[in-house]
Amino acid sequence: MHPPATEAIVSLPGWVAEVVDWNRAYATDEDRMGLAIELSRQNVLREGGGPFGAIVVERDSGRLVSVGVNSVVRLANCTLHGEMVAFMLAQRRLGSFTLAGPEMPVHELVTSCEPCAMCLGATLWSGVRRLVYGAGRDDASRIDFDEGPVFAESYRYLEARGIEISGGVLRREAVPVLELYRQRNGPVYNG
Amino acid sequence: MHPPATEAIVSLPGWVAEVVDWNRAYATDEDRMGLAIELSRQNVLREGGGPFGAIVVERDSGRLVSVGVNSVVRLANCTLHGEMVAFMLAQRRLGSFTLAGPEMPVHELVTSCEPCAMCLGATLWSGVRRLVYGAGRDDASRIDFDEGPVFAESYRYLEARGIEISGGVLRREAVPVLELYRQRNGPVYNG
Repeated sequence: MHPPATEAIVSLPGWVAEVVDWNRAYATDEDRMGLAIELSRQNVLREGGGPFGAIVVERDSGRLVSVGVNSVVRLANCTLHGEMVAFMLAQRRLGSFTLAGPEMPVHELVTSCEPCAMCLGATLWSGVRRLVYGAGRDDASRIDFDEGPVFAESYRYLEARGIEISGGVLRREAVPVLELYRQRNGPVYNG
Repeated sequence: MHPPATEAIVSLPGWVAEVVDWNRAYATDEDRMGLAIELSRQNVLREGGGPFGAIVVERDSGRLVSVGVNSVVRLANCTLHGEMVAFMLAQRRLGSFTLAGPEMPVHELVTSCEPCAMCLGATLWSGVRRLVYGAGRDDASRIDFDEGPVFAESYRYLEARGIEISGGVLRREAVPVLELYRQRNGPVYNG
């Protein structure tokens, strides 16, 4: 066995710079979801990992704060779902463990697919005030991705703490990326 | 705002090397929990972050694979609970996104306090086959740490997928560390 690890690195693949326009304002839910889905699609096409992309954006201005793609296989780290990478990089950029700091604008997470149990928990800790997803749990299950212990009460728990949740945005564009991943025989881990 | 972040680093504080004996076999649940609690205590005393420590260990040999301490405040990253850090560093060491790889021994997570919703989800993805915790959800709530949407069904969900769960190990040693944190007015984030 290798010596004990004291450090791990979380990084975006280089191609992300080609796909993302950081200077654009993403005004509508559809604009934002379009980017999250494009990240998921490119992650499949470039064989970066699972078919999932996410962004953190300022809710009112539409300014893009961070992006994430599923990096589980690429970085050998089961925690690096697209949403988690987006949260980590948003907090890194802002130098804060919460996106709900006193002087901050309201932030939201936009993700190409309904979050798993881990990412839903992280959504609560992140400080985002709104969660928007595209494809649903059932869509992910159809390609054998398990979403973990998420229940109707889980959503109520977040809503009771002030997080607004909207699902199914551009679902008809999000689902084909999941199907593309299956067609290309992408690895389904712990499924 | 700073330019977009493309990388984040996950690291242990330097003092961990003074506290952990990597060559010892941690034979019993109590041996293992003793280390997890000591990590939690040192994290409070050295003001590293929240009062939580965790380890990944080979279930049968007792060989220590990785350790983690809550690093949310230190690294400005809401996802870095002790359990998450332990999973990331175990997978980094083994070079695998799962701790249940075909040639691997069985791994378990031992954590000083019952996992939150995020960490329970990650437990499922990590590949550990056993979860052992010390203090409980109610103990954490008493110092205002929210555990998120975890329900009785959440545990059944993990158990149905082959993960054995044992709680309350050395609880009477784990709880005083939570109280110590409160006495020292440690920050409770998103509480």
